[in-house]
Amino acid sequence: MLSPIELRSDNAAGAAPEILAAVNAANVGSALAYGADEWTARLHDIVRDVFEHPRARVFPVVSGTAANSLALAAMSPPWGAVLCHESAHILRSECGATSMFSGGGVMRGLAGENHKVTVEAVRAAFDDTRWGDNHHSQPSVLSLTVPTDHGTTYTSAQIAALSSAAKERGLRVHVDGARVANAIAAEGCTPAEMTWRAGVDVFSLGALKNGALSTDAIVCFDEAVADELHYRIKRAGHVASKMRFQSVQLQAYLTDGLWLRNASVANAAMSRFAAGLRQLDIELVSAPEVNMAWARIDGDACRRMEDAGLLFYRMGGNDVRFVTSFQTTLEEIDEALERISKALVAA
Amino acid sequence: MLSPIELRSDNAAGAAPEILAAVNAANVGSALAYGADEWTARLHDIVRDVFEHPRARVFPVVSGTAANSLALAAMSPPWGAVLCHESAHILRSECGATSMFSGGGVMRGLAGENHKVTVEAVRAAFDDTRWGDNHHSQPSVLSLTVPTDHGTTYTSAQIAALSSAAKERGLRVHVDGARVANAIAAEGCTPAEMTWRAGVDVFSLGALKNGALSTDAIVCFDEAVADELHYRIKRAGHVASKMRFQSVQLQAYLTDGLWLRNASVANAAMSRFAAGLRQLDIELVSAPEVNMAWARIDGDACRRMEDAGLLFYRMGGNDVRFVTSFQTTLEEIDEALERISKALVAA
Amino acid sequence: MLSPIELRSDNAAGAAPEILAAVNAANVGSALAYGADEWTARLHDIVRDVFEHPRARVFPVVSGTAANSLALAAMSPPWGAVLCHESAHILRSECGATSMFSGGGVMRGLAGENHKVTVEAVRAAFDDTRWGDNHHSQPSVLSLTVPTDHGTTYTSAQIAALSSAAKERGLRVHVDGARVANAIAAEGCTPAEMTWRAGVDVFSLGALKNGALSTDAIVCFDEAVADELHYRIKRAGHVASKMRFQSVQLQAYLTDGLWLRNASVANAAMSRFAAGLRQLDIELVSAPEVNMAWARIDGDACRRMEDAGLLFYRMGGNDVRFVTSFQTTLEEIDEALERISKALVAA
Amino acid sequence: MLSPIELRSDNAAGAAPEILAAVNAANVGSALAYGADEWTARLHDIVRDVFEHPRARVFPVVSGTAANSLALAAMSPPWGAVLCHESAHILRSECGATSMFSGGGVMRGLAGENHKVTVEAVRAAFDDTRWGDNHHSQPSVLSLTVPTDHGTTYTSAQIAALSSAAKERGLRVHVDGARVANAIAAEGCTPAEMTWRAGVDVFSLGALKNGALSTDAIVCFDEAVADELHYRIKRAGHVASKMRFQSVQLQAYLTDGLWLRNASVANAAMSRFAAGLRQLDIELVSAPEVNMAWARIDGDACRRMEDAGLLFYRMGGNDVRFVTSFQTTLEEIDEALERISKALVAA
Repeated sequence: MLSPIELRSDNAAGAAPEILAAVNAANVGSALAYGADEWTARLHDIVRDVFEHPRARVFPVVSGTAANSLALAAMSPPWGAVLCHESAHILRSECGATSMFSGGGVMRGLAGENHKVTVEAVRAAFDDTRWGDNHHSQPSVLSLTVPTDHGTTYTSAQIAALSSAAKERGLRVHVDGARVANAIAAEGCTPAEMTWRAGVDVFSLGALKNGALSTDAIVCFDEAVADELHYRIKRAGHVASKMRFQSVQLQAYLTDGLWLRNASVANAAMSRFAAGLRQLDIELVSAPEVNMAWARIDGDACRRMEDAGLLFYRMGGNDVRFVTSFQTTLEEIDEALERISKALVAA
Repeated sequence: MLSPIELRSDNAAGAAPEILAAVNAANVGSALAYGADEWTARLHDIVRDVFEHPRARVFPVVSGTAANSLALAAMSPPWGAVLCHESAHILRSECGATSMFSGGGVMRGLAGENHKVTVEAVRAAFDDTRWGDNHHSQPSVLSLTVPTDHGTTYTSAQIAALSSAAKERGLRVHVDGARVANAIAAEGCTPAEMTWRAGVDVFSLGALKNGALSTDAIVCFDEAVADELHYRIKRAGHVASKMRFQSVQLQAYLTDGLWLRNASVANAAMSRFAAGLRQLDIELVSAPEVNMAWARIDGDACRRMEDAGLLFYRMGGNDVRFVTSFQTTLEEIDEALERISKALVAA
Repeated sequence: MLSPIELRSDNAAGAAPEILAAVNAANVGSALAYGADEWTARLHDIVRDVFEHPRARVFPVVSGTAANSLALAAMSPPWGAVLCHESAHILRSECGATSMFSGGGVMRGLAGENHKVTVEAVRAAFDDTRWGDNHHSQPSVLSLTVPTDHGTTYTSAQIAALSSAAKERGLRVHVDGARVANAIAAEGCTPAEMTWRAGVDVFSLGALKNGALSTDAIVCFDEAVADELHYRIKRAGHVASKMRFQSVQLQAYLTDGLWLRNASVANAAMSRFAAGLRQLDIELVSAPEVNMAWARIDGDACRRMEDAGLLFYRMGGNDVRFVTSFQTTLEEIDEALERISKALVAA
Repeated sequence: MLSPIELRSDNAAGAAPEILAAVNAANVGSALAYGADEWTARLHDIVRDVFEHPRARVFPVVSGTAANSLALAAMSPPWGAVLCHESAHILRSECGATSMFSGGGVMRGLAGENHKVTVEAVRAAFDDTRWGDNHHSQPSVLSLTVPTDHGTTYTSAQIAALSSAAKERGLRVHVDGARVANAIAAEGCTPAEMTWRAGVDVFSLGALKNGALSTDAIVCFDEAVADELHYRIKRAGHVASKMRFQSVQLQAYLTDGLWLRNASVANAAMSRFAAGLRQLDIELVSAPEVNMAWARIDGDACRRMEDAGLLFYRMGGNDVRFVTSFQTTLEEIDEALERISKALVAA
């Protein structure tokens, strides 16, 4: 039996050693609960420094679903509509969390190639809206998944153009950044360039898929939203009592570029993997721009790949998904390609 | 300057070394997210074993507020009323979390000595209810804080009597067990005796105040409620992606009696401390039955105690609160009493 | 068998002939739905005129519960607390409507003689609040029931003093005015004096108990709240499609002082009735200041009164409630007193 | 100037004289509030009789939005998904009411010709669902708009087939029957055949567009849902205090077939109108099966039609909508066609 190679999800990876070490180091003495500790205070400074924004505020929460849905609920009135791509995670995979926390807000899924929202789609949604008519939920937030759940991503310039279009009608801009480090690393821009400088008001800072143990975060550049989140997060049960152990993870994550380094490792592994798939004449559904690829492989070959110890997801039909993480090695990639190559040939 | 002695809250304590070690040990290999990992599977077995209940289900969540409010929302219809003591944490310190998650459920605070609900108070509330009249929220859950936020607690027999009264009218019974280990340790009963054998349907298993890093849990003996929680927890953002690191904490916590040992340490420290306070003729507001004492000390003495490095909370008027934790040593207790003794004498 | 005399509730009265006539008259031609009709436009003018406020906005809704809960939800954030008397209708008799519509807001009942909130109670509630602490719902609205559900009422000056205290901490002021016409008529003040001139931001304008057929209304002097209500009312299903038939009722109600005339009839009937009860040495629980009295009459006498055709409510113990309406005649009052007089004497 | 002819909406019609007469007649004596009156009791009997169902329960509410959203909230858990056509009124024109009342339920719009859901679309939605996976809202209700907002309708047999498909996976079946009388009249079936005999569990009984003054209703054949509605309707503020005036409208509506007669008048007017439009070579978007037509007419002609006193809605592009009501006369239809005929010819 061949050893398994993990390509199902970056969520299946463990914790980064730097982050685990930081957690261990924080277990000294007593510290007040609920964020009134020095680790959390320092985290705010680090976030402001890394994002070059003097009033940024950060709220550690335990999952990306919490980060997205609580942020959106604070950004949008109960009668608001969140515009997003029709394949967005917030629309399809969070069991109505945003509708619940917002008191009945809705999501309007927009079509768009490569799973990306376009300026044209936003404008068309605006044209299709009866503004001010109380029979209709009112567009209030544009939410972009950066990168998308399908391995494509937005550039900073694209985000800026979309923000600009959204703000023509007074919408706020949200980014579901469950893997935002991968997008920043892929573009090579600064964290500020991809976020507030591109018009983003609030974003979910994913950390769990990229080395953290038990926390993601909301980063907020809009003070009115932050003031709401102060209460919303507590009453949703997302203010950790031992916050220091959450904050210290994010500290380590953002310090010395660990988050972007880890993301680069995952991106590089996928880049090599995608090149290998192409050489094997495997069709890629879209160009993998970060650490994820969707490909088309027939069921028989899939079964042989599974038999050969490859861990990946079948997504319906012949679609399969491969994801690399900060723990994926180039040796694993080469070995995976080798096994796939063999599996493509019927026994 | 004297070294500080932590008596503000057990929430200020760090993580138990056994739990931190377990987290470190779980950082091996890849594991599927959202609870589909072997640590979480094993946790279910451990819970069933420790609580002697073959169908118990456990849901790790990140805070006691999450545990309480999600459990209560699953136990009660939107038009339900949760009966609890008027000083209950769920009523006074969770910012309406239960009302939010339940879709507008309400809480009815009952009076009762020593911050405890009595059978008579439950019966009086029933008599005061217009059952079936849709102008009035309908009592649906009795929630007990075990132990109370004031250092008193319920015995298993008292819980059983209250459950029995509640069930006469079809209510479910919930325990806010943020410190339930301290109550079990104080009574010396089995975990089953204080929970389902006493009629408890669902309870919040506190772990954070007693050694855990980042998780409490809901333990559920009622399958209909558990089936609801499956969805409610996800859409509240409380399904950790790297669940293994949450589950493994609870594993360590419940294994070999660590939770009860830690609670006993805290209880014993408080017991010695309370005896010392009495010797100093300090009035105790109620008999400290677990790891917390409320006492009456005038403001001048309080200031001198603070100057002497004692960390504790002033609760308004002359009320002060002292809490011990699993990290409190008997040496610290003796030293604290020594300092208090001096502080009681005006300079 | 004696003919019944209705003293259970003003809710049991029929529609005022002037209002029914107006409804009949409005059944001419076609009119756009949802408020885009001329009757609704005129209603706004009438409200502005009657209340002497150029920007007042009015929202017809189908019940007092709708008026109260939707207004409060628009006035308060989800983490807000509505301060009210512990006997307030919004707290005890609306099945959690405000908590539902506000997304989990809570109500804090304050004690106070004669079922009235006092400035001292408001200040004490403020002192007892941890402002800005996200563990605690934040006082956001003071709601006064004018008159109370127990037949007492507030003067304009009392409302002004309470508003002033509430606004020291930034709260909005709401009046549950299910019977506000009776309070205005009793004091003889102007509608403006009892509402916005006394610091009231939004109030429920009761009409159903005083002659309307199928509508109460929210009257709003705060434009931010009104802008919210525009959407909240629709999504709660309270925008009548044939709004003209609702608006025209309120038109007739407010025109030529019908509402105050009707209220005066009810008040005068109660005044005579209360005087009669006192002459019969019946204890009144509090002085009936509008159209309702609570009295203490033993069970045997009550039974004889019921046998004599008197319709009234027993409220527990020896408490009974009598309510007069705009349809109550002085002859009925005299006849009722006559029958009570006889019933007090055991057979 | 020509007299206006109303073809915008059946919502713009007035009240049926029979219904208004019944309201006037009910204004006798006193009657207990909130449904404890004899008119409401009789309404239950009438509904059970008309729908041939001994346990049917009826809840008068003030609007179709209230009827739909409260029913759906009672039929579906908070994590449920309501399947409906992508053009459904509940999805597009109720400002998120169902999501609010259900605590964050979502709607999944299905494609389908003539604005109708098909069995194939329902089955495809089922195949596309990850049943039991808590990341995804779970299909819980199939809601059909009968007739659709575009003038097409379902037959009883089609509803039965859809119900049957829905129930294979345990969904409940709801009908938005804002104009259900028109559908029943068009098919000539019995009310039972189109509702519970076709598998419908709960439906919105539209009355307002077809002659009522201030009430629609929910009719419920599922007792568990009815027991929930008892509370949900109250806390949504939809229990009218003077319920008798609402119930009596529905009594008159359902008595002696008034509802079906009125609907037939509207249907017949549209039938003649549609025939006339076809003769004028105007393209109909779909075959008008009840009292509504969507047609394509260019902007210049529309302007001339408006100038000629025709009242109708432009729906974007060249789409226009015509609706007839129980008040529309055949003379008006002929006159309208005459004016359209002239307007089609440029000046």
